[in-house]
Amino acid sequence: MSEAKGVQKHFEVLKTHNNARRGRLQTAHGVIQTPVFMAVGTKATVKAMTPEELVECGTQVVLGNTYHLHLRPGEKLIKKMGGLHQFMNWNKPILTDSGGFQVFSLSGLRTLTEEGVEFRSHLDGAKYFISPEKSMEIQMDLGSDIIMAFDECLQYPATDEQIQKSMDLTYRWLLRSKAAMTRKESLLFGIVQGGLDLKHRMKSLEQVTSVELPGYALGGFSVGEPIHLMHELLPHVAPLMPADKPRYLMGVGTPTDLLIAINSGVDMFDCVMPTRVARNGTLYTWQGKVSIKRNEYKEDPSPLDPECDCYTCRNYSRAYLRHLFLSGEILGSRLNSIHNIYFYMKLMERSRAAIENGTWDEFFLSCIQKFSKKD
Amino acid sequence: MSEAKGVQKHFEVLKTHNNARRGRLQTAHGVIQTPVFMAVGTKATVKAMTPEELVECGTQVVLGNTYHLHLRPGEKLIKKMGGLHQFMNWNKPILTDSGGFQVFSLSGLRTLTEEGVEFRSHLDGAKYFISPEKSMEIQMDLGSDIIMAFDECLQYPATDEQIQKSMDLTYRWLLRSKAAMTRKESLLFGIVQGGLDLKHRMKSLEQVTSVELPGYALGGFSVGEPIHLMHELLPHVAPLMPADKPRYLMGVGTPTDLLIAINSGVDMFDCVMPTRVARNGTLYTWQGKVSIKRNEYKEDPSPLDPECDCYTCRNYSRAYLRHLFLSGEILGSRLNSIHNIYFYMKLMERSRAAIENGTWDEFFLSCIQKFSKKD
Repeated sequence: MSEAKGVQKHFEVLKTHNNARRGRLQTAHGVIQTPVFMAVGTKATVKAMTPEELVECGTQVVLGNTYHLHLRPGEKLIKKMGGLHQFMNWNKPILTDSGGFQVFSLSGLRTLTEEGVEFRSHLDGAKYFISPEKSMEIQMDLGSDIIMAFDECLQYPATDEQIQKSMDLTYRWLLRSKAAMTRKESLLFGIVQGGLDLKHRMKSLEQVTSVELPGYALGGFSVGEPIHLMHELLPHVAPLMPADKPRYLMGVGTPTDLLIAINSGVDMFDCVMPTRVARNGTLYTWQGKVSIKRNEYKEDPSPLDPECDCYTCRNYSRAYLRHLFLSGEILGSRLNSIHNIYFYMKLMERSRAAIENGTWDEFFLSCIQKFSKKD
Repeated sequence: MSEAKGVQKHFEVLKTHNNARRGRLQTAHGVIQTPVFMAVGTKATVKAMTPEELVECGTQVVLGNTYHLHLRPGEKLIKKMGGLHQFMNWNKPILTDSGGFQVFSLSGLRTLTEEGVEFRSHLDGAKYFISPEKSMEIQMDLGSDIIMAFDECLQYPATDEQIQKSMDLTYRWLLRSKAAMTRKESLLFGIVQGGLDLKHRMKSLEQVTSVELPGYALGGFSVGEPIHLMHELLPHVAPLMPADKPRYLMGVGTPTDLLIAINSGVDMFDCVMPTRVARNGTLYTWQGKVSIKRNEYKEDPSPLDPECDCYTCRNYSRAYLRHLFLSGEILGSRLNSIHNIYFYMKLMERSRAAIENGTWDEFFLSCIQKFSKKD
């Protein structure tokens, strides 16, 4: 695979079904089959799971959070330990975010300038400063396979003026991010902002994609907006993103959100949702969501999801999962996390198969209908 | 294997080294090699671990707590789910305690009569009543392989009069426990009480062993006494227990405690210590105890214990374990629990080997010396 100018071509679309795409992305730690859901490993661990369990669930790539890892244990320490892959014992691809999202959610604790962002740690109040150059340096020290450009992520709602100003800053920071990226093994992705308004999104898309990069992301979703606004915008925005590059929708979302985004042409996802709600006893099944603490499962000897063959469903009953949850046992968090991650990975696997074999429309609609009852 | 009167013989001493014994105990769910450490699975789960991980660590038998399981989810529910083995997905032997220890630690919440004990649940204050007959019924419903007689467990210190009265009650309750035991697949063990005084212990031992049973336990340790009192008493008491029956020291203890007890002739142990301290960041190694949060491990790329080949030591650095602990990550509790359980199981395995091949004295002394530095 090579492009006209001799630049390595990392992404290939293998098949399309209307807007939906089936592709493969080459990284320094192996190939990622898309559409793909990336498990979130904020603090160098996907909560409650081992790397082996992630692989058994079909996880192809893990996301690390630059903000959290910078604060603790620090990227220099991780670099000394051989990089994030070795530190956390994960030999497959790693994507790191830029720190932008976390920093900008620290409202009141941060000061934004053209140069970058000064903020106080949520751990101990210590002062930190992250610029595009610093974000690149951290992510390169971590040894990420996919590095995200440093962007400003606005909360919802924002005024037209705020959005315009933020987009322009994000563009200038993207240029600085690219200039600061010197690690050849890593792929830099740019982030499209622009809020929930199509004209702003198109303007940001134009700015960001004017910079030649191995991938592009949609940022600024899951920031408090009514979810139907994202559902309505995605079919208009995603198909306009470069067709020959991976498209990554950041921080999204429910199974329904993922399906709607795939149907719009998105290739990559990450979200804390499957592991976070698992720890709170909410489980995704092919029949819709299940709250495991409900009394109806008290003496239910059947597996959580009869359609599922994950470790949890193969070995434990709903009655046992309910007991572990009500008892606050760590094994409950583990078994629930394994199930939800497996479900998400299987949803992606089935989506890939459906796009490949031309059954995407039926698969998409039947899932949306089943999930919409409770999802 | 059969005894003179045609009674099934469950236990066999294969080798002795002075008082130390190497044996095997046959149960309905398989053979237990002794000396053995039983992992504590209070609420139908050994905290933070799966059954497969327990097996990988060398765990032969798990202990369930009658008091906790009676309160939640209830033995009738577990019986409906196929028994405790099936409920928690553990196919090897299970021992259950009688509920006595937990009930008696509920001081102020309980009323003791000849008939049994009335107490209030620590969960919701509801009233419960456990008698010897009830304890047997619960344990039989759970489907335990080894069932403990219902006893009174005194706190330390106690007066001579209290101890005598309690021992006599324990004896009468043992007779009722045996009479109530109707499950042929289960082995009933009697519990010797008598505090920290040799004459009381010998009296209780005489009472309890006058009842023919497949095993006997030493209860009433780990109840607040200075540990040297137990260390001094064990060599006098354990060898007096029936030589052809397994001897179980309940609720004990540190690696040093276990070695001293094995040296005195004890065969079986259980304790929450390895998993509890693991969650608090204290790890047992062949060089002594390690507190993983210490600053000296911050950038330490070496495994926790270079002598250990558990999953944790094979795959993770001290720096990573420290990071997980300081970050409060569930994976930290998991990896630490795996290591400590593995260490305890390996300590038992090496003890068995040392007794077998005549190197017990050297093994015993070298361990005591190494562990005493920090243990």
